[in-house]
Amino acid sequence: MRAIFIAVGSELLEKDKIDTNSIYMAQKLQETGILTDMKVVVGDDITNLSWIVKNACKRAQLLIITGGLGPTEDDITREAVAEGLKRDLEFKEEIAADIAERFKKRGIPMPEINTRQAFIVQGAEVLPNPMGTAPGQYIDDENCKILLLPGPPHEMRALFDKVLEEKIAPLSNYYIYKRMFKFGAITESETDSMLAELYTRYKNIRTTILASPGLIEVHLLGRSRKTVEEAQTAVDELAEKIKERMKDFLVTERDSSLEQLLVEELKTRKLTLSVAESCTGGGLGNRITNVPGSSEVFLGGVIAYSNELKMKLLGVKENTLKRHGAVSKDTAREMAQGIRALTGSDIGLSITGIAGPGGAAVGKPVGLVFIHFASEKGDTGVYQIFPGERDVVKTRTINYSLSLLRKQLET
Amino acid sequence: MRAIFIAVGSELLEKDKIDTNSIYMAQKLQETGILTDMKVVVGDDITNLSWIVKNACKRAQLLIITGGLGPTEDDITREAVAEGLKRDLEFKEEIAADIAERFKKRGIPMPEINTRQAFIVQGAEVLPNPMGTAPGQYIDDENCKILLLPGPPHEMRALFDKVLEEKIAPLSNYYIYKRMFKFGAITESETDSMLAELYTRYKNIRTTILASPGLIEVHLLGRSRKTVEEAQTAVDELAEKIKERMKDFLVTERDSSLEQLLVEELKTRKLTLSVAESCTGGGLGNRITNVPGSSEVFLGGVIAYSNELKMKLLGVKENTLKRHGAVSKDTAREMAQGIRALTGSDIGLSITGIAGPGGAAVGKPVGLVFIHFASEKGDTGVYQIFPGERDVVKTRTINYSLSLLRKQLET
Repeated sequence: MRAIFIAVGSELLEKDKIDTNSIYMAQKLQETGILTDMKVVVGDDITNLSWIVKNACKRAQLLIITGGLGPTEDDITREAVAEGLKRDLEFKEEIAADIAERFKKRGIPMPEINTRQAFIVQGAEVLPNPMGTAPGQYIDDENCKILLLPGPPHEMRALFDKVLEEKIAPLSNYYIYKRMFKFGAITESETDSMLAELYTRYKNIRTTILASPGLIEVHLLGRSRKTVEEAQTAVDELAEKIKERMKDFLVTERDSSLEQLLVEELKTRKLTLSVAESCTGGGLGNRITNVPGSSEVFLGGVIAYSNELKMKLLGVKENTLKRHGAVSKDTAREMAQGIRALTGSDIGLSITGIAGPGGAAVGKPVGLVFIHFASEKGDTGVYQIFPGERDVVKTRTINYSLSLLRKQLET
Repeated sequence: MRAIFIAVGSELLEKDKIDTNSIYMAQKLQETGILTDMKVVVGDDITNLSWIVKNACKRAQLLIITGGLGPTEDDITREAVAEGLKRDLEFKEEIAADIAERFKKRGIPMPEINTRQAFIVQGAEVLPNPMGTAPGQYIDDENCKILLLPGPPHEMRALFDKVLEEKIAPLSNYYIYKRMFKFGAITESETDSMLAELYTRYKNIRTTILASPGLIEVHLLGRSRKTVEEAQTAVDELAEKIKERMKDFLVTERDSSLEQLLVEELKTRKLTLSVAESCTGGGLGNRITNVPGSSEVFLGGVIAYSNELKMKLLGVKENTLKRHGAVSKDTAREMAQGIRALTGSDIGLSITGIAGPGGAAVGKPVGLVFIHFASEKGDTGVYQIFPGERDVVKTRTINYSLSLLRKQLET
């Protein structure tokens, strides 16, 4: 079974607007062994949408259309699907009554316009929407199942999860099994050249390599028409080979963020952390404090952007700054020791570097970053030259620091 | 003239992978008056792609296909387009020689596989690619122009910008004119209900409302078949009405980020800033230091996540924390005054709040945030209750602080 997604809404064609619904659903479908062939984003235009519906039904066995079910003139999904499938629209009293009741509860008279939402495509099954006024619809059209869902993600998710379990998953004729790895300190193309010769041998496993600054994910998805064990055996076999070959770069096999992993590790070891950030400007603290409960182990820190603050708050020596510069291993060490002394944390982590575009000097290119960990057990300092724009250098630095500190704790 | 985008690549159907090429090009096309009807993302599958090409050509006058022009078996765009248009593929000696030359310069023999890139769709014009081995192709097919571009964004952009100027823009029969507003302290639906009655009267202006946590953008795009002045007159008329009605919420009419605007304002007024962050954990400093040159006005700050650091570094009184709690106007005031005294900055900005999901108390719900500005001129304190998940509360808090401080500076 193959699926096509259609996201309806002119706003989705604008810059910066991204259809997150299809990402959510494609992931869930994949878990039941149904793969996505195509995604379409289309504006609020009946002609365009009905044309796509008509044609997509000839190619895919599952068509999922999100958005365009609201009450306004712009909401054209019902009409377009009816036209595409050459079916009529039917008015459903029950739906209209439901919507009216919903407004009554909020003490507002139902605007006349909302009765538009009571129309369904002839023969469609109504999928009640507990979170909003637009119900979903499920149409069984010969060889193609068509699912109409509301656009707002929280409404879509509640309906989709239910219909996936009850109607769609039973139609899938595959068993699937998944594993994933996160690797650090390696690029996407290096990962691919280390692994391509391995994974191309496994035809029933879909291997995907995803890259973000400083972190590479490798996803393995095995499918079997017979049993889940068959899928699992193949995936595990490939996974072990990958693990062996990439062991120096392995960050985790869990689907957790680097900051979650670090906070957990600190909690397990009952250690507290404070940070002294220069070029990342607070970005590391921001990431750590994105983890609920991070306050148990993260005390805080200093954003020592200026040299004065490095000296005044962290005790970096004027002489160190003069001789070695703010971006140097010596300044990084004094910053880490300084923040540890200042806050009384078990570990002090410091970052100082040149995020660019300005600030480079002889022997100190843009992207040069020093990271230092100070603790009772001793100190570790490293440096890296990260490629990319200002924000990419910052993100890479933060990912690298999170990942490296966790590794340090483990050893 | 209407456009359809097709992004080719199975990896684009995976989660977290987003086709940024179409966002870039749709924006540029819009500036020349060409609107996008549809975007399609399709895997590396000849049958699917050739089917889309064949059908899309019947509906749009411009078809832009990115990706799938590489040398491997997976790169199926050339074959699929030829099949969709019922044209042959032609081998071009010049292209093969070009690619071979490129490898020679790097001192590597050209892999045989790369000759695949020397095939063009019959009748296509070759668009040389200075950044990579895959040339683009431009096909003039009766009523539809088809543009094949390489997938890597930096390669695509160089080719696209040139072909847009030389071939596509002259075909557009519209003049366009744009304006935009950023509003704060208002929701998307409030904005829409204040403006819908205005903008729906202007049929030749496309009004788009975009929302991110704590910031609403309104874009106006006017089109005219006659002159740019006609488009401008209408847009300016609507813009002035919007400005009048929304003046209390206006942040800027410029396409700059809040942090850029704040850094510029500080530079203009020759003022320095330092921050004391609790619940945002460094996120405000991170945003400010994303602006190149922010070091001129931003000294740094303290991430005072624990109460101990609030007292030790910022001089918050133990009694204040005991009587009013860490999340209170009094603590916020002492934090702001403390960071200003500590760093010697002109302005001290503090944030303390409950980002959630834990930490709520009687009278102090999740999302409650106190913000305080301390300066020579006097102090300002505000509080807000922001809705949303932990990261959304943090982002809203940061956007609100950036926007409010800038307003304070202006008055």
